[in-house]
Amino acid sequence: MTTSSPVTIVGATGDLGFGLALRLAHAGVPVVVGSRDAERAAEAAERVGAAVAGADARGLANPEAAAASDLVVLSVPFASQAATLRSIRGELRSGTVLLDVTVPLATAVGGRPTRTLGVPQGSAAQQAQELVPDGVAVVAGLHTVAARHLADLGHAFDEDALLCGNDSDAKARVTELLRRIPGLRPVDAGRLEMARIVEQLTALTIAINMRHKVTAGIRITGLPTA
Amino acid sequence: MTTSSPVTIVGATGDLGFGLALRLAHAGVPVVVGSRDAERAAEAAERVGAAVAGADARGLANPEAAAASDLVVLSVPFASQAATLRSIRGELRSGTVLLDVTVPLATAVGGRPTRTLGVPQGSAAQQAQELVPDGVAVVAGLHTVAARHLADLGHAFDEDALLCGNDSDAKARVTELLRRIPGLRPVDAGRLEMARIVEQLTALTIAINMRHKVTAGIRITGLPTA
Repeated sequence: MTTSSPVTIVGATGDLGFGLALRLAHAGVPVVVGSRDAERAAEAAERVGAAVAGADARGLANPEAAAASDLVVLSVPFASQAATLRSIRGELRSGTVLLDVTVPLATAVGGRPTRTLGVPQGSAAQQAQELVPDGVAVVAGLHTVAARHLADLGHAFDEDALLCGNDSDAKARVTELLRRIPGLRPVDAGRLEMARIVEQLTALTIAINMRHKVTAGIRITGLPTA
Repeated sequence: MTTSSPVTIVGATGDLGFGLALRLAHAGVPVVVGSRDAERAAEAAERVGAAVAGADARGLANPEAAAASDLVVLSVPFASQAATLRSIRGELRSGTVLLDVTVPLATAVGGRPTRTLGVPQGSAAQQAQELVPDGVAVVAGLHTVAARHLADLGHAFDEDALLCGNDSDAKARVTELLRRIPGLRPVDAGRLEMARIVEQLTALTIAINMRHKVTAGIRITGLPTA
């Protein structure tokens, strides 16, 4: 276990956020578990502590959680993304990396999870970039990584996590973080605008899950094995 | 080598179409090589014959080529898709399967290959479905399979070919055909509307190719290995 600066997860009471909190805590990363409600955040942090021996996890309301780290994961439903960002933007210091895992699924407006909404900025991640203060770099990622696989610490990953972003240093920081999850290979999928495509992959994997009764992920072939 | 009914490739003088013609001929499938120009079609068929010993390949102008098979692959640039379909639709009999590999890359209007155009019907494949006669089933596929890998008969595939379509029998026919290409695993990715997402994967793999200097493909993880 290496020492590490803390990572905040805004929306850590959701399935994906909580699974990620578990995995990071398991990897020895101090996690700050954010929720709209400080009490629910504390409760989630307790659950992380109960599941992972020696976990360094604390729960805070989203704005306080966002202020506690310079790597903040935003893991909320698309319908809440803008409001959540507005609630935390005052706490995001210049130099902060925001890992946005939001997917504009049509479920946000009562539609199907195999469909996505058009987002004026192009993607949820580009909407996030528009809403954060200057100096905060948005990286989009984790769209194809199943919450249930994150939450199951016994699950051995054998898939990729596609990352998009305009700031190479920010992508490198997220890459380094995700490499702590065994078997998950971060793959640089280009600039932030590629999130328009990569976010769609959630809907694709959901469609494949429904049709094949599996929990699918994505692997890019043809890359050098590192 | 098993016997097989012929497969027509409309647009077989393009890179992907030609690579597919080579692979299918190599697998013992009789191929009808279509082009706008009958002479260029004949020339392409000759090139297939020169590259694959014992190939059963003949070249015809697109409409005659389309009439020659009940499995027709449409492999033309997006800018030509509608016009090409209008030129062959009179030859497509009820029961024909159209495998559409068209991708609405922004290059069609001078844009980047890492971007796609919005298509009024949702995707190029859905545009194709609108343009073919009733009784012709469109299957979308092969968007992430590189032309250069198809054309290189020595290349061992280790990736998936995602297929979308509303007609299960049509998807089964395409699945059976693509299984003849060693290492390429056809994966049912759902209904035709999923082509909106799957077609985007061409732009994604192009972005990854440019960034990593590779020839990428896609593999779905979590499916039973069959």
